[in-house]
Amino acid sequence: MSGGDAPRPLTGDVDPAEFRAAAHAAVEWIAAYLEGNADPATAPPVKSRVAPGAIRAALPPAPPAHGEPLAAMLADVQRVLLPGITHWNHPGFFAYFANSAPYPGILGELLAAALNANGMLWAASPAVTELEQVALDWLRQLLGLTGDWFGEITDTASISTLYALAAAREALGAGVREAGMAGRADLPRLRVYCSEHAHSSVDKAVIALGLGHDNLVKVAADDAFRMRPDALAAAMAADAAAGCRPMAVVPTVGTTSVTSIDPVAAVVRVARAHGAWVHVDAAYGGAAAVVPELRHVLDGADGADSLVVNPHKWLFTPMDCSVLYTRHPDRLRQAFALVPEYLVTTGRDGAVDLMDYGVQLGRRFRALKLWMVLRAFGAEGLAERVRHHCELAREFAGMVHVEGAPWVLMAPVTLSLVCFRHEPAGMDEAALAAWNATLLARVNADGRAFLSHTKVNGRYLLRLAIGNLRTDRTHVAAAWQALREAVAAGP
Amino acid sequence: MSGGDAPRPLTGDVDPAEFRAAAHAAVEWIAAYLEGNADPATAPPVKSRVAPGAIRAALPPAPPAHGEPLAAMLADVQRVLLPGITHWNHPGFFAYFANSAPYPGILGELLAAALNANGMLWAASPAVTELEQVALDWLRQLLGLTGDWFGEITDTASISTLYALAAAREALGAGVREAGMAGRADLPRLRVYCSEHAHSSVDKAVIALGLGHDNLVKVAADDAFRMRPDALAAAMAADAAAGCRPMAVVPTVGTTSVTSIDPVAAVVRVARAHGAWVHVDAAYGGAAAVVPELRHVLDGADGADSLVVNPHKWLFTPMDCSVLYTRHPDRLRQAFALVPEYLVTTGRDGAVDLMDYGVQLGRRFRALKLWMVLRAFGAEGLAERVRHHCELAREFAGMVHVEGAPWVLMAPVTLSLVCFRHEPAGMDEAALAAWNATLLARVNADGRAFLSHTKVNGRYLLRLAIGNLRTDRTHVAAAWQALREAVAAGP
Repeated sequence: MSGGDAPRPLTGDVDPAEFRAAAHAAVEWIAAYLEGNADPATAPPVKSRVAPGAIRAALPPAPPAHGEPLAAMLADVQRVLLPGITHWNHPGFFAYFANSAPYPGILGELLAAALNANGMLWAASPAVTELEQVALDWLRQLLGLTGDWFGEITDTASISTLYALAAAREALGAGVREAGMAGRADLPRLRVYCSEHAHSSVDKAVIALGLGHDNLVKVAADDAFRMRPDALAAAMAADAAAGCRPMAVVPTVGTTSVTSIDPVAAVVRVARAHGAWVHVDAAYGGAAAVVPELRHVLDGADGADSLVVNPHKWLFTPMDCSVLYTRHPDRLRQAFALVPEYLVTTGRDGAVDLMDYGVQLGRRFRALKLWMVLRAFGAEGLAERVRHHCELAREFAGMVHVEGAPWVLMAPVTLSLVCFRHEPAGMDEAALAAWNATLLARVNADGRAFLSHTKVNGRYLLRLAIGNLRTDRTHVAAAWQALREAVAAGP
Repeated sequence: MSGGDAPRPLTGDVDPAEFRAAAHAAVEWIAAYLEGNADPATAPPVKSRVAPGAIRAALPPAPPAHGEPLAAMLADVQRVLLPGITHWNHPGFFAYFANSAPYPGILGELLAAALNANGMLWAASPAVTELEQVALDWLRQLLGLTGDWFGEITDTASISTLYALAAAREALGAGVREAGMAGRADLPRLRVYCSEHAHSSVDKAVIALGLGHDNLVKVAADDAFRMRPDALAAAMAADAAAGCRPMAVVPTVGTTSVTSIDPVAAVVRVARAHGAWVHVDAAYGGAAAVVPELRHVLDGADGADSLVVNPHKWLFTPMDCSVLYTRHPDRLRQAFALVPEYLVTTGRDGAVDLMDYGVQLGRRFRALKLWMVLRAFGAEGLAERVRHHCELAREFAGMVHVEGAPWVLMAPVTLSLVCFRHEPAGMDEAALAAWNATLLARVNADGRAFLSHTKVNGRYLLRLAIGNLRTDRTHVAAAWQALREAVAAGP
């Protein structure tokens, strides 16, 4: 080491020429894959057809002793893994909430992986923190939120909501951070409220935070599946009267089952009467606010305390990228900031250390892909695409409506999700559930489309969720055709 | 939609030819960047020199109205962002724990971004779940763990540890998941133990879970910075006698400040006497177990209940990739499983739905990069590289030792971290801290190397952490040279 010793050769160090060749091949493969997915003539089945264990069985049970070439891995991705991939990045994907990885986002991820920067501290790679601030301020403007919202990127809405409720818990002023909740005579039960149609991430956050699943109150919804403010008020009042502490309310903008939109402004008014935090779950639906005439989906949100929106859902950003906004970043800091000596930095006045606003220390450079997507689309491009998805959903609902019985629409089409089912005469609910599950299985086996289902108020229904960047009329029409063929195949 | 309407053109849809051109250029840029970083003649300064706010000020305050070309973004990455990047993927990076994104890992991230698959459920993309199982079973074998460990990938060690402690909480059988912890007369304070040198992620997990920071007991260490089992036993006994419930112990294999290794087997014995869960934080140090002669770092771990190791630290996998292993996956499921109707799948007996083992629902295809890294290196390649890093650390420590006073080593070199400082005669601790902070600032401004510091037992010390794939003798020698020049520049 004092000089003279040549670095000894070590295995496992891929030659740059090998990387260049493999990465250029991968780029060509990706372009062909995505263009192929978008063309019904060449698209693979959307949903994988492999049996459980098949992929695992096709792979060696032990790691190789010696290094292998990249070309062999690319071949295995194609030959072994691809049959096990359900193609989310495919315009025939209508299940859950569809998402997209467009070219600019893929490029952003490629660059982020190469830089491998960790933005835990501003000083650990200043551009990671500052680009995150820029991109999230751009997104805030696109969503029409006021200037007093602080944003941070997390991996998932589940974590964003967990952070928000941790901040709400700290905002109680009950010293939970230091003293905890167990073994304290001074602490009542802490109650959280959401609608009966809220996402399971609220349940998981309440469980993880130690608040207890029993203390998540599922408030009744109206007949359009929206949280009823009167029912919320009654539940909060009853809890307060019983000596519980109403801690937070989580209205949803775009519920997972039916994309209903809770009346956020009214919820905020009810919550304020009890001093409860309001966290808006706009993980999917918030994206619609980039369309000027749909901006009303976030009406009332500026009165809330925090809000989650997921660019990796309906804003054409590759997984993972969730954004937590809050008007009270001080509360997030209060909940989480903790600076061990090995992370103390000096001499950077005014810089934000994003590790202080959550649990995770490591912070991947996710802002890069988001920034590239926002630039590649521009405000108008995003709005046009989201608007178009809503139009396609209305068109599909129109076809279901025009076709008529036994096809029925099961929920209002508020955004880009259509809930429907096939209701032959004489079937009870159990038979309808079984029949529609059969239709779903047939459609998903067909390969042209992948849909999912849910149950709402005890009724099984089918979901066609439009959200992939490249989904257009032809793909929606193919899904409709597959559904009709599934019916025609008979009971 | 019924046919005849041509899809209307929408903005924001990047042409595949534009993607191909930009992505091929990015691949060339990445290879040149990484080769350039490794060559002292061309390497950029490791640590960014920008002032707070400079990157943000160089970017437009509002998003563009219309889409922009990819080439413009690549140019801005180079021109605007790169000066704000601290180069983690640079062999002169010796701060915190150094990490790496080698070529195979970058390629894996590129492919994962394009597929954009979400492995929340087995059925949502079977290959995502099954490749994760395969890659983690390979890694388990490489670490020498027994066959009864279940693994899952998380984003960070902070989340892995949070999950482990949530499982520990559920293992109490106290019904915390459903009833929570607040407002319960039957629940005593729940206590968690780690050494005084444990990572702040343990603190954050205890805080987030609502256990209370006051209930994290920092157990005294011996003079090699290892948790003292006798002190642990005394603390647990005192707590039990006081009516508290000892819930979990978190020994560390490779503490952040000094990479000390707690005596896991002895800790397990003490914890077992109180029925407490043992979670091993081997986020950094666990990687050493891939070297046969260093496998002893995990001695005793097979008696623990859970263990975290981060391939994105010292196993040459791009951020983010942490792995949580547990011998009690049933406890993790018990803590977190919750299946809403819209995620119910049928007909896949034997398939694991990884969403049931944690908070997050969305699951990026992180296994792909890990699998490609393990294949590209092979067992021998990984071992050679980790072994070499340990040799480099011993060589650097040898140079400090041979140079002698006022240079002093401050902790045993257990793995690839060297703790040291410069101790001119006549300085008290405050003066020594200030002087070494000055040296650190000079070295980091110099550009050849980036080191960090910590405080242990009140003493400020410098850390040279070797972990980047391409770090070799020349880079370590350059850091040493920069340190000596910093001293030579005088007080």
